[in-house]
Amino acid sequence: MPYKAISGIGEFGMIDKIAALAAPTLRAVPELLTGIGDDCAVFQPAAGLLQVSTTDILAEQVHFDLLTTPLQHLGSKAISVNVSDICAMNALPRYALISLAVPASFPIAMIEELYIGMSDAAQKYGLAIAGGDTSSSRSGLVISVTMVGEVAPEQITHRSGAKPGDLLCVTGTIGGAAAGLKLLMREKEIMLNHIENNEPYVKSVIGDMKEYREAIRAQLLPIARIDIVKFFHARNIRPSSMIDISDGLSSDLQHLCQQSKTGALIHENLLPINASTRRIADELQDDALTWALTGGEDYQLLFTLSKEKYQNIAEYKSISVIGEITSQESGVHLCDIYGTDIDMESIRGFDHFSS
Amino acid sequence: MPYKAISGIGEFGMIDKIAALAAPTLRAVPELLTGIGDDCAVFQPAAGLLQVSTTDILAEQVHFDLLTTPLQHLGSKAISVNVSDICAMNALPRYALISLAVPASFPIAMIEELYIGMSDAAQKYGLAIAGGDTSSSRSGLVISVTMVGEVAPEQITHRSGAKPGDLLCVTGTIGGAAAGLKLLMREKEIMLNHIENNEPYVKSVIGDMKEYREAIRAQLLPIARIDIVKFFHARNIRPSSMIDISDGLSSDLQHLCQQSKTGALIHENLLPINASTRRIADELQDDALTWALTGGEDYQLLFTLSKEKYQNIAEYKSISVIGEITSQESGVHLCDIYGTDIDMESIRGFDHFSS
Repeated sequence: MPYKAISGIGEFGMIDKIAALAAPTLRAVPELLTGIGDDCAVFQPAAGLLQVSTTDILAEQVHFDLLTTPLQHLGSKAISVNVSDICAMNALPRYALISLAVPASFPIAMIEELYIGMSDAAQKYGLAIAGGDTSSSRSGLVISVTMVGEVAPEQITHRSGAKPGDLLCVTGTIGGAAAGLKLLMREKEIMLNHIENNEPYVKSVIGDMKEYREAIRAQLLPIARIDIVKFFHARNIRPSSMIDISDGLSSDLQHLCQQSKTGALIHENLLPINASTRRIADELQDDALTWALTGGEDYQLLFTLSKEKYQNIAEYKSISVIGEITSQESGVHLCDIYGTDIDMESIRGFDHFSS
Repeated sequence: MPYKAISGIGEFGMIDKIAALAAPTLRAVPELLTGIGDDCAVFQPAAGLLQVSTTDILAEQVHFDLLTTPLQHLGSKAISVNVSDICAMNALPRYALISLAVPASFPIAMIEELYIGMSDAAQKYGLAIAGGDTSSSRSGLVISVTMVGEVAPEQITHRSGAKPGDLLCVTGTIGGAAAGLKLLMREKEIMLNHIENNEPYVKSVIGDMKEYREAIRAQLLPIARIDIVKFFHARNIRPSSMIDISDGLSSDLQHLCQQSKTGALIHENLLPINASTRRIADELQDDALTWALTGGEDYQLLFTLSKEKYQNIAEYKSISVIGEITSQESGVHLCDIYGTDIDMESIRGFDHFSS
C-alpha cells in the first residue's frame, strides 16, 4: 500500500476517515443521537434529558509551550476549551475526566500547579473533576480532558439548524487570542536571544506587559461563555444553530454553514475586534482581521437566531450581530470595509496536519 | 520550593495529591456519587439510573511498542482496557470518546488500522464510538479513551463492599499477559540483533509462534469480561465488591482491601495460571507466580461474594475461588504451595513513576 502521511490529507480528511470507521458502532446504541461531527456527541440517558460529551487533547510543543505558559493557566485553559464545546450545544457542564501523560522527571509541584488551575476553573464553572488516569510519558506532557454536560431536549442546539435570513451573532471579541500568542512568541524569542548572548533576562514573561494584558489573557486564560448559555436558558432563547470559535471564525463559520446547508454573508465592519488587538497588530506589522478570521482559540460562541427573536438578545452587551445566513448556493462570504466581497473558502483556519 | 520529581512519590502518591485538589469541585455536583478512587466515577443522571465513566491514556514507548504491537490489536486493547473498568463496576459500556495525538508524518493507513481495531472491538462490546479529538504530536503516538457505561443502582458494585468471610473470586486466568510481554520483548531483541548484524529477519514477530499464541493474545488482545457482567445481571448476582486486574493481582487485591477496610488470604494453589504460562516461565527461567501477582494487564475481574451465594456462580466455568476476605488487622496474605505465609504488601504491581 502506498505511503500517505496524515499531513497529505489534513486534519479534516483524517476525521472523515475516522467517522466512517466509527459509523457501524452507532447501530447498537440508539440512545446516541449525534456522533462525530458536532461540538459534542449527544446521548439520551433518560426521557427528558440529553447528555453532551466532548474531549480535547493538548500536547506539549503543539498546543502549549511551557516556556510561555504558566501551568495554572494551562490547567484552566484545558478545562475551558471543553466547557466551550459543551456551551456550543447550549448545555451546561457537569463533570470532567482528566488524563495526563507526564515525564517521570517532572517536578510534582508542576503537576500540582496544573491541577490547581483545573480545580479553580472547574469550581468557577460548577463542574466536578470526577476521575482520570496518569501515566508516564517518554516525551513531553500530554493532557486529555473529557467533559460531560446536560441539557433539556428542547434547549439543545446543533451546528445544523441555521436558516437563510437568520442573524449571525458572535459573543465577546475575536482575534485577541492570536494577538496574545504573537506577543508571547516575540517575548520568547527575546528571552532566548538574551540567553544565547549571555545577557541577563530577568523580567517575567507576562509581568511587565500590562498594556498587552488583555490579549495575553485571551490566549492563556480564555473563559468559556457559560454566561451566555445561562442567559439563553433564563430567557428561554434557543439559537437555531451554534458552534464555538476554536479554529477561527472563518473555519468555524464554514463548518456551521456546511452542517446547516446554508451560505453566509458577514461584514468586516461588524466584527468585534478589540482596540488593543488592533494596536498590537499595528505594532507587530500584522493584520488584526486575519487574526480574527483564522487565529482561533477565542472560545467565543458563534450562533444564529431568527430575526424576530433579535429583541431577546439586543440587551446583552457581549453579543454582536456580524451578518446573516444566506442560501447554500450563495457560498460563505465576507464584505470588507471597502465593500469588496471575499470568498471565505479561500481563508482557512488552523489544521494540525496541514503541510 | 525544593525540586521533587514525580518518580520520588510514585503514581499513587501523585493520585492522592490530585484527588485532594479535585475534592472541592465535587461540592457543586451532588449527582456525582463517586469521584476519584474506584474503577469508575459514578454519576446519577436520573432516578433509577447510574452512569459510570473511566478514562485511560496509552503512550508510545510506555504502554506499547509499535515494533511488537500490530495497530489493530492496539486499537482493540485501548477499547478493552476501558470496558474492563466499566465491567468492574458491574456496568455495561455505552459509548466512548477517543483522542489521538499523532506525529504528522504517520501514514494515514496506520491510523485507519488503529481505528479498525477500535471499531471492531466496540461492535463486539456493543458500544458506540461517539466522538473524539485529533491533534499532531511532536513525539510519539498518544491514545486517550474515555468510556461511559450504565448500570441500575441496585446492581452497581464498588471496590469497597467486601466483608470478612466473603469468598475472593477471579475470572479467567492470570499471568498470561505478562508471559506474552516477555515473549514479545525476547522476539524484539532477536529481531534487533539480526538487524544489527545485517542478517535477514523475515519472520513475522507473531506469526510463527503458534505455541505461544495464548500468551501473546492475552498481552496484545485482552478481552474485557463483559460476559461475566451479563451473567451477573441475568442471574441477579451482585458481588459485594469488584475491581479489574490491571496492575496485577497483588496490587489490585490490596486496593480492594484498602477500600473495603479488610484483609485477605489467598492460596497459591488456587490461582488460575495457564499451563502455557507456566511452560513459558520455565523456558524463560522466570516465575509464573510473580507474573500472576505483579504482571498486570490481565483485565480479569477480581470480586467478592458472600459464601451463601457461591452456588449462584459455581456453574460458571471461568470463575475461580482463590481465597477469602479476612479482617483488616490480618493484612493481605498469600499462602504458597509449601504453606508459607507471604505478606503481599512486600509484592508490588506496576507503578508508572517508581524510580
